Amino acid sequence: MHAVEVRDRIMIAHSFRGEMFGPAQALHGATFVIDAAFLAETLDPNGVVVDIGAAHAALNAVVRDLNYRNLDDIPEFGGFNTTTEFLTRYVFDRLAGAARNGSLGRDARELAAIRVTIAESDVARAWYKGPLR
Amino acid sequence: MHAVEVRDRIMIAHSFRGEMFGPAQALHGATFVIDAAFLAETLDPNGVVVDIGAAHAALNAVVRDLNYRNLDDIPEFGGFNTTTEFLTRYVFDRLAGAARNGSLGRDARELAAIRVTIAESDVARAWYKGPLR
Amino acid sequence: MHAVEVRDRIMIAHSFRGEMFGPAQALHGATFVIDAAFLAETLDPNGVVVDIGAAHAALNAVVRDLNYRNLDDIPEFGGFNTTTEFLTRYVFDRLAGAARNGSLGRDARELAAIRVTIAESDVARAWYKGPLR
Amino acid sequence: MHAVEVRDRIMIAHSFRGEMFGPAQALHGATFVIDAAFLAETLDPNGVVVDIGAAHAALNAVVRDLNYRNLDDIPEFGGFNTTTEFLTRYVFDRLAGAARNGSLGRDARELAAIRVTIAESDVARAWYKGPLR
Amino acid sequence: MHAVEVRDRIMIAHSFRGEMFGPAQALHGATFVIDAAFLAETLDPNGVVVDIGAAHAALNAVVRDLNYRNLDDIPEFGGFNTTTEFLTRYVFDRLAGAARNGSLGRDARELAAIRVTIAESDVARAWYKGPLR
Amino acid sequence: MHAVEVRDRIMIAHSFRGEMFGPAQALHGATFVIDAAFLAETLDPNGVVVDIGAAHAALNAVVRDLNYRNLDDIPEFGGFNTTTEFLTRYVFDRLAGAARNGSLGRDARELAAIRVTIAESDVARAWYKGPLR
Repeated sequence: MHAVEVRDRIMIAHSFRGEMFGPAQALHGATFVIDAAFLAETLDPNGVVVDIGAAHAALNAVVRDLNYRNLDDIPEFGGFNTTTEFLTRYVFDRLAGAARNGSLGRDARELAAIRVTIAESDVARAWYKGPLR
Repeated sequence: MHAVEVRDRIMIAHSFRGEMFGPAQALHGATFVIDAAFLAETLDPNGVVVDIGAAHAALNAVVRDLNYRNLDDIPEFGGFNTTTEFLTRYVFDRLAGAARNGSLGRDARELAAIRVTIAESDVARAWYKGPLR
Repeated sequence: MHAVEVRDRIMIAHSFRGEMFGPAQALHGATFVIDAAFLAETLDPNGVVVDIGAAHAALNAVVRDLNYRNLDDIPEFGGFNTTTEFLTRYVFDRLAGAARNGSLGRDARELAAIRVTIAESDVARAWYKGPLR
Repeated sequence: MHAVEVRDRIMIAHSFRGEMFGPAQALHGATFVIDAAFLAETLDPNGVVVDIGAAHAALNAVVRDLNYRNLDDIPEFGGFNTTTEFLTRYVFDRLAGAARNGSLGRDARELAAIRVTIAESDVARAWYKGPLR
Repeated sequence: MHAVEVRDRIMIAHSFRGEMFGPAQALHGATFVIDAAFLAETLDPNGVVVDIGAAHAALNAVVRDLNYRNLDDIPEFGGFNTTTEFLTRYVFDRLAGAARNGSLGRDARELAAIRVTIAESDVARAWYKGPLR
Repeated sequence: MHAVEVRDRIMIAHSFRGEMFGPAQALHGATFVIDAAFLAETLDPNGVVVDIGAAHAALNAVVRDLNYRNLDDIPEFGGFNTTTEFLTRYVFDRLAGAARNGSLGRDARELAAIRVTIAESDVARAWYKGPLR
């Protein structure tokens, strides 16, 4: 299996509901360093999984809408804790949509999976990996 | 598949038996930077794989007993080379036990796997990944 | 010149005032990875700049009060943008105070300077270095 | 599953054919930081996946022939774009051969897979993972 | 002394003249990860050394002209080896010019120095630090 | 001021004397990732501070003698705690000697200083910087 992975980053505020979160129930924030990996069994005729420029652009298109935001104010997330885990899935879903609508410049049926990793600090990160087909 | 991964570190001494190890047969040591990843198909109602505070605590509870030790003196390891690979499995087994006894705050049956990665330097690391069920 | 440097981290929310900040005028947040370096011309009789455990404790004592906070709500910062640069100076001042009150376990007159570096992302950081005497 | 991973690096020039590559169609270059991971279900009697010294040597033996080269001039690559993805597969094939001819000091039938990761910058990397049997 | 530092990256080809360079006399290439630090004794009224967005833009404006180039073909470098050391000075000179022409949004006379660091791999880097006044 | 910096690493055992060290009084160990920076006001006619190959070789020549050793057994260190700080000075002294005896391929009088940084973990490091003249 081949993969290509690109990186971007955002700075956001949010708060969590649930006693488990302790002090993180207060409004706080995070820098999220986000890696998006695209997996495919085969390379395309140019010798790539996807155009790395298109991959960077697709990831940026997803995360720039969240940058410098208070995630508590985004209706799309209403009712859910915007944990690092939750956000990996959100970015995955948006990238899967981008793949299916052709934004990556390769037929999504030739891609096997996407993995989104978000590091919230130097000592903690989360990822979500799911199939595209 | 979702995952959350946390990091800790220890500084230990040990020696290896076996000609393969060359100069590492002598007593030497290592800083081990240890990442423990917990994998689950679904998030819990709070939107997490496991409470990240509990994950940090569970990893620390395992590795702090090894910190500042000569691993050659630990009876529990008797007879085995405490290679980086061996230790990834040891930490995995201890974390799997913690998961099963509820230390992570989530039913272990809802977790799919644990992966323990130990970097012994900037150019070498090992990992062990195993199922929890 | 000798130095020893230790690391900690916090997750905070804040907003900035001033057109220069563009979208960062909105409430957002950051993970700050904070390195505190203590500099001295000579080592103490134990062969250290300062007790590294005391250095970790002193840094943690400063930054834990900011962790999971909205910095806009902290009266101590009233009237100033809590930029990364501003915070490096704040942490410096607090650590200099800790050094002078003996928290580092070495006479502050034997220390030359402190440097505080805060990385706000993988592509941006700030630092402040000042003398202790 | 156990794994051990080692790192090396090379500095090369090359160019790409295909409009997709935009400015990268011109002769340019890259530092490739290369991680080779060897996976096995079980450890050998010494407690390792493979001798880490042999792993470092096997990886170096593959990549040193590419170091300080213009990859466009290497007949072995003729007709293909030497993308990061392509090179992960090339290094994989060479390491699989090394495993099968015994260079790793362990019977290749005891190894499950090899994964080769090449970082082309701090924000982009590719990998190839394939079975050995 | 305060500082703020931003990061960018380029991928270039070049060759060196001089027996000292051994195999690096051949055409090869590099990924250069470039950090530009701006130093000032005081923060501006907004609480920053310079606008970090302007700093990123100024660095990008300098390095994008080199990206995907064969540095041997750039007349401006004619006659000199484009070593990592040489390039740190080149980027410094261009950034100093940007500071003096106001591109950083702060009077250059309020800045003390610029430091440019270029990492050519995970195990080698160079920097140049010079005063602005 | 120009600088070039190279990296190497060793794995050692040792113990400390002094109550300050707490559990580190026991025999333990460390991976030390060692960066040696060579500083000069001017570049040589080849456009370098020092031959980077010579720099790597000089650093390796110093640290390889310590690799896989119990530092408590090295008479040269007798009577001193081999703290990270102590070792930065030891490596500095050895590299300064190498510079003065011509091992770096450049007249030591053209070099201004050497800085040796040793990271003992992902959260702690020390350095020593001294003049060469």
